[in-house]
Amino acid sequence: MSADQPSAVVVGTTSWGCTLAIQLDRAGTAVTILCRTQEESRQLASEREQRRLLPGIALPDSVRFATDFNGLGAVDLLIVAVPSQRMRDALSSVLAVAPRPLPPLLSASKGLEVDSDLRMSQVIHEALADAGLKAPVAALSGPNIAREVALGQATTAVIASDDAALPARMRPWLMTPAFRVYTNTDIIGVELGGALKNVIAIGVGIGDGLEVGANGRAAFLTRGLAEMARLGVALGARPLTFAGLTGLGDLIATAGSPRSRNRYVGEQLGRGSSLADILAGMVHVAEGVETTRAARHLAQQAGVDMPIVDAMYRVLFEGLNPTDAIHELMTREAGDELAGLPEIFPAS
Amino acid sequence: MSADQPSAVVVGTTSWGCTLAIQLDRAGTAVTILCRTQEESRQLASEREQRRLLPGIALPDSVRFATDFNGLGAVDLLIVAVPSQRMRDALSSVLAVAPRPLPPLLSASKGLEVDSDLRMSQVIHEALADAGLKAPVAALSGPNIAREVALGQATTAVIASDDAALPARMRPWLMTPAFRVYTNTDIIGVELGGALKNVIAIGVGIGDGLEVGANGRAAFLTRGLAEMARLGVALGARPLTFAGLTGLGDLIATAGSPRSRNRYVGEQLGRGSSLADILAGMVHVAEGVETTRAARHLAQQAGVDMPIVDAMYRVLFEGLNPTDAIHELMTREAGDELAGLPEIFPAS
Repeated sequence: MSADQPSAVVVGTTSWGCTLAIQLDRAGTAVTILCRTQEESRQLASEREQRRLLPGIALPDSVRFATDFNGLGAVDLLIVAVPSQRMRDALSSVLAVAPRPLPPLLSASKGLEVDSDLRMSQVIHEALADAGLKAPVAALSGPNIAREVALGQATTAVIASDDAALPARMRPWLMTPAFRVYTNTDIIGVELGGALKNVIAIGVGIGDGLEVGANGRAAFLTRGLAEMARLGVALGARPLTFAGLTGLGDLIATAGSPRSRNRYVGEQLGRGSSLADILAGMVHVAEGVETTRAARHLAQQAGVDMPIVDAMYRVLFEGLNPTDAIHELMTREAGDELAGLPEIFPAS
Repeated sequence: MSADQPSAVVVGTTSWGCTLAIQLDRAGTAVTILCRTQEESRQLASEREQRRLLPGIALPDSVRFATDFNGLGAVDLLIVAVPSQRMRDALSSVLAVAPRPLPPLLSASKGLEVDSDLRMSQVIHEALADAGLKAPVAALSGPNIAREVALGQATTAVIASDDAALPARMRPWLMTPAFRVYTNTDIIGVELGGALKNVIAIGVGIGDGLEVGANGRAAFLTRGLAEMARLGVALGARPLTFAGLTGLGDLIATAGSPRSRNRYVGEQLGRGSSLADILAGMVHVAEGVETTRAARHLAQQAGVDMPIVDAMYRVLFEGLNPTDAIHELMTREAGDELAGLPEIFPAS
């Protein structure tokens, strides 16, 4: 590592965590993946492949593995890429041993924490406060199917933060010609887009299982994005963010990729499998399942009408037949197309 | 035909014209398809199938075929579903023989007229004025892959008009539970969405030929919609319309359907075929090709930056290599994600 080479630590050996390590390495950043156990660290270092979650993708020799920060030297960036429901605990463990002063933190997880209903950056701020620490926090999101990024396929992503200068500072640590990083100051909208699109994707999957066709699918996605934006605006997001890469873009990528886990959950539900059986058969976490609980709760508290989220909740947790749910959504009364939408892209 | 049964005439034996006849029939409207020749009329009436453009789809026995309005009785609705570059001539011929007073007209074509750069409803208004006639005019658009509608798959559509009461009056003539018709007062935005999305779809097709992946595809569609909306706003459209079924919705359906002709043109261009060879091998009209000329001209006149439209123009008409075009678009400088977008969803 040269004296002026930037240095990053990735928390989480998920497919996205390992992919981001590959991408940081490509961008010229020295990167260490923080593992939970010595065994995992040794295995990844020797196999140079996350065989369970990202099979067939080589982890470069320059990527290092560790279980603590000893001997890492200065760390410019701490990326957290763990499942959303593990964010609070994982971060608490890491903060206990991370170097002081803390480097800026970048959340790469797309979900909402159940019960608290918090976005990931909010969870991070709470974990920091609990540990008596402070650090700038940003969120990474966008249409980012991990395997495509790992393979070097053209991708765009967005870094957002309340701290206006932070995303531009982080960008060069991650950006290459094939991985273009944009900035956005609306972290609420960026995080909600990434989380809520997983709920809509479950519905898209159910529709795919029922073979609704391109017309019905497009209508569902259009109404789904409107619903996401409606909640976002009620929670303080900038409506325009939902028309961007982390809203519309991520929704399209998720709906269009055969690799989307959330779409897959919906497809299997549509074919009659139980949620428990589907989840038991997956090695990846489908964030949309738990996020559905939080999103429904947020919508109820904010008084926002979210028929798709509500239908997904009833399918996932109350035994509503998926076919009935989609049928119900597809046969609502037609009227003024944009009625209700003025709240989505309102005058600012 | 019962005394109070509504009656419609469809101009155009295109796949969409024939599909709309099937849908009108389903909705309980008496429908006649106006053919250009006696021979075509006799053939369709005996075969009950548009074998060239909509093979395998039966035209119901109750759909009638004619070459003029003789014996049709009262006509409540005149739908024009011809290729955009034929709209002016086709309509002039029909207006010469149509009953007086004219019924309201509904344009079902998605394109811009080359040279005049006009939307279809504008062309209709000019043709009416040229004939010294007046009639209310509306436009039909949305995520409507014809074959899916013909097969009765769940679909949403939008009728828009400057005449606020007209869309709601037309709706019951077309609407069934599987074909939900919404209304919109922004005919500029509705028509531009349907026309411009075909240009973006050509680019999506090129990308598909190059196997750019779900991430790059989603980014391209997101930036494409932003570009469409930017021109729309400059031309007086309501920005919100582009987030609806006739903007985002239609773009997603077109990009997601293997049946899209415009996407197909792009895919073949990406594989090295010449435009002339591709068009010569198609039975359908790919509206996006000619609309690219008009859209580029409109953008230049309005001073609107449309990098995708511009790149498609250079690929289609100036010999730019499709791979170079997509590469150029995918490697533009990243910055503030929403920079330039405030014009898209502005304060109203």
